[in-house]
Amino acid sequence: MATFRAIKEEMERRIAAREWEPGAMIPAEEELAREFGSARATVNRALQELARAGVVERKRKAGTRVSLHPVREARFVIPLVRQEIEAEGAEYRYALLSREMERAPDLVRARLGVEGELLHLRCLHLANGAPFQFEDRWINPAAVPGALEESFAGISPNEWLVRNSPFSQADFSFRAARASRSEAEILGLPEGEAVFIAERATFIGDAPVTLVRLVHPPGYVLRTSL
Amino acid sequence: MATFRAIKEEMERRIAAREWEPGAMIPAEEELAREFGSARATVNRALQELARAGVVERKRKAGTRVSLHPVREARFVIPLVRQEIEAEGAEYRYALLSREMERAPDLVRARLGVEGELLHLRCLHLANGAPFQFEDRWINPAAVPGALEESFAGISPNEWLVRNSPFSQADFSFRAARASRSEAEILGLPEGEAVFIAERATFIGDAPVTLVRLVHPPGYVLRTSL
Repeated sequence: MATFRAIKEEMERRIAAREWEPGAMIPAEEELAREFGSARATVNRALQELARAGVVERKRKAGTRVSLHPVREARFVIPLVRQEIEAEGAEYRYALLSREMERAPDLVRARLGVEGELLHLRCLHLANGAPFQFEDRWINPAAVPGALEESFAGISPNEWLVRNSPFSQADFSFRAARASRSEAEILGLPEGEAVFIAERATFIGDAPVTLVRLVHPPGYVLRTSL
Repeated sequence: MATFRAIKEEMERRIAAREWEPGAMIPAEEELAREFGSARATVNRALQELARAGVVERKRKAGTRVSLHPVREARFVIPLVRQEIEAEGAEYRYALLSREMERAPDLVRARLGVEGELLHLRCLHLANGAPFQFEDRWINPAAVPGALEESFAGISPNEWLVRNSPFSQADFSFRAARASRSEAEILGLPEGEAVFIAERATFIGDAPVTLVRLVHPPGYVLRTSL
């Protein structure tokens, strides 16, 4: 009797070989169960997984068809930088460079939609003693009042916020750029080196929580899978 | 009577202000319905959305608590480069640079786990006549036999594969690098300029479908939100 995994793989093979063409209906569950000599529940489980992966589309009454526009969606997790570093087997170290209440630059205020002073934190995350990420962060104390009582000497804002500050919306952007003079200095790079920059803005309801710019030296790779 | 949206926002406010603390149980639905003067179904819907966003956690019998480790997961969609460009209001143009059956370099074969010749395509995507993306792609004809009959003169492999080739798994990586001499030439950049490189490998079942390296000139930003 075929396992659910063997059935799923055979279905994937047929779809890849276009024996089942894009957009076409595939045979009914009972028919497939007979063909594979398995329980209908086993076929159902295989179809469920294919549907979750976006390879087929199931309609309650109309049956199952091969997706015309298969899934093109991937996920990634907002990383704890400490975990990222430790996952590579490296030793994690954190250094706070500065902590100030400040009027943010226009771009930051526009991005978060706030006036008034924000908590500005600059810190460095190291892997085996080498700079791994420069974190330049603004926190809205109105949304995260506890941040004002935290020194951030012993815990990074990344980790503190994940523990203490829920959010309901986040915007992400990723880009490549030449390192500025100060970024190059902090990361110990030649000026103009290619750095990978991740920016995140998070919000709880309509209230801005934080805007962060993370600068990584060459060699950094952001990975995800689907 | 409070709308579901107003209730959701008030709950977000309480969580942000830590009136409802991380990990703490929140009042029962009936109690909240009484407090907000709304139907229990309305409260339920607000809680459902907060749970989907990872702000609260619901257990069937135990009730609802504020998440200790709120969601840190974002999604992004594998873009059609044409749509990316047209979404900016720019005119899309595509040019095929080369199309060969070739023995792939060791790194590509190792990455895909295939021997034998692969279909190698190099092409350029332009926005308003300026290089936007250099696509360097290997396709496994065993998994996508139709690709051998396609010239790719009039349709990019990106678009053709999305239409014709389902996949069940994809690995993504993103990095910054200095442009190589040939990349700089193709993209019309000074050598050594910072480029944003996205790589994808896709599989259907265990069969490798394609490996692609997408190189973007400075100014390119990959965006996503949650």
